[in-house]
Amino acid sequence: MAMKTSRDIRNESRFMVLRAVYAGGTVTRAQVATETGLSPATVATLVGELVEEGVLREAGRISSQGGRPTSTFQANPQRGRLLAIDVAETYVRLDVYDLALARLDQEQVELAPGAQTIASVGEVIGGALTALRRREALADRDILFTGASLPGQVDTARGVDVFAPNWGWRDVPVVDVLEEAVGGRVRVDNPLMALATGELWFGAGRRFRDFIAVNLGTGVGAGIILDGQLLRGRGNSAGEWGHTTLVWQGRACRCGRQGCIESYVGVEGMRRTLEEIRSDHPLLEVVHHRAFIEQLMRAEAAGDAAAREAVQRTGDHLAAGLGNLINLLNPEHVSVLGWITRYAGTDLRERVRTRIQQECLPGPGSGVSLEFTETAGESVSLGMAVLALEGFLEQVGLPSPSSLPAPPAIDRTEHRAAWAVPGAPTPSRGPR
Amino acid sequence: MAMKTSRDIRNESRFMVLRAVYAGGTVTRAQVATETGLSPATVATLVGELVEEGVLREAGRISSQGGRPTSTFQANPQRGRLLAIDVAETYVRLDVYDLALARLDQEQVELAPGAQTIASVGEVIGGALTALRRREALADRDILFTGASLPGQVDTARGVDVFAPNWGWRDVPVVDVLEEAVGGRVRVDNPLMALATGELWFGAGRRFRDFIAVNLGTGVGAGIILDGQLLRGRGNSAGEWGHTTLVWQGRACRCGRQGCIESYVGVEGMRRTLEEIRSDHPLLEVVHHRAFIEQLMRAEAAGDAAAREAVQRTGDHLAAGLGNLINLLNPEHVSVLGWITRYAGTDLRERVRTRIQQECLPGPGSGVSLEFTETAGESVSLGMAVLALEGFLEQVGLPSPSSLPAPPAIDRTEHRAAWAVPGAPTPSRGPR
Repeated sequence: MAMKTSRDIRNESRFMVLRAVYAGGTVTRAQVATETGLSPATVATLVGELVEEGVLREAGRISSQGGRPTSTFQANPQRGRLLAIDVAETYVRLDVYDLALARLDQEQVELAPGAQTIASVGEVIGGALTALRRREALADRDILFTGASLPGQVDTARGVDVFAPNWGWRDVPVVDVLEEAVGGRVRVDNPLMALATGELWFGAGRRFRDFIAVNLGTGVGAGIILDGQLLRGRGNSAGEWGHTTLVWQGRACRCGRQGCIESYVGVEGMRRTLEEIRSDHPLLEVVHHRAFIEQLMRAEAAGDAAAREAVQRTGDHLAAGLGNLINLLNPEHVSVLGWITRYAGTDLRERVRTRIQQECLPGPGSGVSLEFTETAGESVSLGMAVLALEGFLEQVGLPSPSSLPAPPAIDRTEHRAAWAVPGAPTPSRGPR
Repeated sequence: MAMKTSRDIRNESRFMVLRAVYAGGTVTRAQVATETGLSPATVATLVGELVEEGVLREAGRISSQGGRPTSTFQANPQRGRLLAIDVAETYVRLDVYDLALARLDQEQVELAPGAQTIASVGEVIGGALTALRRREALADRDILFTGASLPGQVDTARGVDVFAPNWGWRDVPVVDVLEEAVGGRVRVDNPLMALATGELWFGAGRRFRDFIAVNLGTGVGAGIILDGQLLRGRGNSAGEWGHTTLVWQGRACRCGRQGCIESYVGVEGMRRTLEEIRSDHPLLEVVHHRAFIEQLMRAEAAGDAAAREAVQRTGDHLAAGLGNLINLLNPEHVSVLGWITRYAGTDLRERVRTRIQQECLPGPGSGVSLEFTETAGESVSLGMAVLALEGFLEQVGLPSPSSLPAPPAIDRTEHRAAWAVPGAPTPSRGPR
């Protein structure tokens, strides 16, 4: 019966303060206290620490009627850089952010089709980083922390990619290779956790404590946010909603099970639905996932009967799958995210909205809100930047850095230099 | 973005201390600190408060080698009574517990078949309580708090039974009638939350922080425990796993949906499975739920081919449904509870164990444990006693009782008398 430690609670409180600052832009301590529910004394202490660590900075002072002037605070963009790496199956993208989470630069490399090894991925990242270091955003700046999204099921705590079937990865240690490639601490995670973290900090998380961030793409999943925290589960693979059975003895799924939600509402699922409706439909020859979805939605809008039927069946399956989540978890809200939402026409949304109420029990169904959110396509990147920020905060917030194991013997000269901020502790290697 | 208040955190810490005491029986402060992860100072403060409130008492002193003698503490059985009420569709049962959660007395009344009103349920409870008051366990003792389990979806915060289809209840206010019937504060909840709370305090909750307590009975559901806390959801109806779709366009479920898990693994689901296999099977005439399950399992063990097939299909559906939970939530453990587990033969369990691994993804499937737990049949009652204890603790732990609304004008003379414990605050009406 291990319980939450006081360090966990302290870290959570720090994140709560940070989220309030990022949500507000420039805020007073009193606004942070109101927003977070933390006591004014706790907020004062945490804001003080974050200023000392160089994460926040005083932005100015405002006078309230009849009272003393009050300081305002904001994130400190001068305090080093965060690197977000999105390793997808067809490309690797590196984004450079400042500590105010503004994106400053980007480098993308297409991957050759077929399987990759972690070594080849590390080489691609190293090359892209060399290019970035020559440009302004990273020149003379150091990377405080890196967040890297990898395909499949990723165990953040162990730094291992547990299962990435398309590359034949099973229990592949990844974090050491990536830390060598970037020359600093890396936190690995999967795209679903990244998307959900972005939604927690910058989307529905501003309005709701208990919500679900459903991701629709080639794969599908559900980031579950409860009590303002992302549910990770025992091995960081919570949220595999795409691999829950919706259709008993249904289609074979690429995961090896049958009738999984993903095999109906993922891209390949929609393709199979269209094929079942009309096996000689010309769109079936469009191999590229985004092009297929875009053209399917366009055909549907133009009155193509088979495309229309495929979209409606997809909507029915999606509504039932969302109903399952709502009945099981009784959330306040569901956000449907992912690149498919950018192309999904009005009809898919309307079909889901029409069907969803009959899929929900009266209790959980009453009052739950549902939103389709168009994303700018960089949500995984932004989410990984936030996870990098979290990793950095955990590191600088370590109560006793000297008691922790030494960092590995890779060259961190430049990395260390960036720590020379007054009051900041020396770098050390905490738990990932 | 409302966050957890310091009062929430304080209440959680109190429950953590109490759970450690109930788990240990007689414990030192140091043992509680080790068990809970709370700081020794916090434990000392909370134990001191609980002793002052009469919830804990000093049990003795033990000497550690070379150190000063240390006090041991235990729950105080002298401090009033807790009442647990289980309103089921065919009976109402009242159990009297002391504050150490030992059951002292019981009164059960069978309900006539057909719908009940909350008024008729209140009358039955009033009658049963009058009988209990004449006997020793309640004579000269007062009821500190009552927990009442009601069928269907219950909104604890509002004191409303949202949906109990078998009695035609929809948004029925229940708590005022029950408080009048027992003459004191009542917390209402549903049987699933009660079972899961019992499992949290006295079962898997002693070993796991993240687990699922699946209840198999006439209805089925899943109590979700995350980070040592029962997930309730927005309207206290989280856990409706029984009403998630497993079989697309499958059997009509009594909830109005199609293909719900309950319509395959609940009692009526098993009956329909047997009927599909052999429509003239003699067991189909056994109407009583427990008798049907008992005889089905007996027939299966005796080699009845149709019964065997029905049990195996049930096992397959159950394994897929459990796999859905494991993939979505990535828990450490799953406990399968409920009265059906008492009758479920080895074959059902073996079938589930054989099938479960292929229903789980490699990540969530590795290392998760699964246990079928035979219950003594009073778990709902014990869980409601714990929920009554929680309600009582929240009440006595209110930081400022005088600032809260006055209690309603019902006769609480006897109730108030019981509060005359040195150091205990006067009773008041907090949030339900």
